[in-house]
Amino acid sequence: MTGGVEERDQSVSLDLLKQQMANFAKERDWDQFHSPRNLLLALVGEVGELSEIFQWKGEVPKGLPDWKEEEKVHLGEELSDVLLYLVRLSDICGIDLGKAALRKVELNAIKYPASKKNFNTSNGTAHTG
Amino acid sequence: MTGGVEERDQSVSLDLLKQQMANFAKERDWDQFHSPRNLLLALVGEVGELSEIFQWKGEVPKGLPDWKEEEKVHLGEELSDVLLYLVRLSDICGIDLGKAALRKVELNAIKYPASKKNFNTSNGTAHTG
Amino acid sequence: MTGGVEERDQSVSLDLLKQQMANFAKERDWDQFHSPRNLLLALVGEVGELSEIFQWKGEVPKGLPDWKEEEKVHLGEELSDVLLYLVRLSDICGIDLGKAALRKVELNAIKYPASKKNFNTSNGTAHTG
Amino acid sequence: MTGGVEERDQSVSLDLLKQQMANFAKERDWDQFHSPRNLLLALVGEVGELSEIFQWKGEVPKGLPDWKEEEKVHLGEELSDVLLYLVRLSDICGIDLGKAALRKVELNAIKYPASKKNFNTSNGTAHTG
Repeated sequence: MTGGVEERDQSVSLDLLKQQMANFAKERDWDQFHSPRNLLLALVGEVGELSEIFQWKGEVPKGLPDWKEEEKVHLGEELSDVLLYLVRLSDICGIDLGKAALRKVELNAIKYPASKKNFNTSNGTAHTG
Repeated sequence: MTGGVEERDQSVSLDLLKQQMANFAKERDWDQFHSPRNLLLALVGEVGELSEIFQWKGEVPKGLPDWKEEEKVHLGEELSDVLLYLVRLSDICGIDLGKAALRKVELNAIKYPASKKNFNTSNGTAHTG
Repeated sequence: MTGGVEERDQSVSLDLLKQQMANFAKERDWDQFHSPRNLLLALVGEVGELSEIFQWKGEVPKGLPDWKEEEKVHLGEELSDVLLYLVRLSDICGIDLGKAALRKVELNAIKYPASKKNFNTSNGTAHTG
Repeated sequence: MTGGVEERDQSVSLDLLKQQMANFAKERDWDQFHSPRNLLLALVGEVGELSEIFQWKGEVPKGLPDWKEEEKVHLGEELSDVLLYLVRLSDICGIDLGKAALRKVELNAIKYPASKKNFNTSNGTAHTG
């Protein structure tokens, strides 16, 4: 009952990733480079790489049924890069990202009550905005 | 034995957020809007809002010592918006984000051995790229 | 007989916009805020607003046949915001954007010869990258 | 006195770039890939590459006095890539970018009168927003 890899993966926490990123930077003496705006621009760079994966494909269906395994692996890496910089940026800014995210979900639930299902797609409103 | 809010927040997992986002969309009949590229563009929109917080400030020190509490709350919300769309996008693409992130950290450790501390800032190389 | 508004609009130059942005900033004492990275983050913010216009729409056909006039006006404004910050950022960095763009088109023509029409959409290669 | 390269470069117009991009796509049979959202994601990808140039540098002074010539050339290329996709996206959407930009400058002048110089940097308001 000690939990195998599979089980651990199912419950990867933001706190674990934060700790890993902090250790990673410390071991390489990279804290000096991890200022808020440096990390923000690095995040934007990774969002750019994520976008490049989708740029010439036209609309793609959920689950990416026609993608090759290597494309999915690549996608997982770019999604991860965005996440890792986001976690690191939050940490450096002194923001508890997990706590903030749970609170944001609650705020969204108030802003968009489940009973009102009509969503206006023409006005560009973000769900979580 | 029940775990207080504080304790729960410390271990917010990607899987929990994924489940919350999935429920949120289902309850509002929003699955129809959550295609991969729709979510990606929504993510880019939130990264834009995150950037706006930092845009006129010049460099800011770690921990954001001079920021007002309301500014930090706002920052936490924008960081969360990026995270929530990232989690949702991963889910819709069939990518296990937590698993992918742990793997990416391992790949980064191989790519950037801890013994080699000299990091060339002039070439624009991303740590996690 | 020197050309009316219509004709002038047809030939809006990057140099004209650069001059207008420089005057605009000077008249408002905003040069102090227009550092390279401030402008870059402002540009990212505007790209986010541009993305929000397209985020819930699914794929849209060329010419945007079903868009309302007010949506097109809004789109024109966001495209302009990106352009204006791009022009200003280039100016502040001492880059001649028009010259650089003409050169880049030439480089692209060498990189992607017109005789080779087969374009691999699966590898995510950017045309201009 | 018909204008050398130098003089021509000084007046590079958006219309010229639009025409060059249209010809470029036509000659390569790329029109099929140039849908609005494909081009938008390609633009985001280029903004990411632009950000990577600045990501580990901390704040940089105007004119980039300490940058090597090759870094400036690279910067010019990335700025150009953003511009070229922006021009192409506008064209494909049926938006006259030059006209829209001139109009936006006028709107900004009304929104931010030159007499009011006090600019609140703490609220994250975009000049051109």
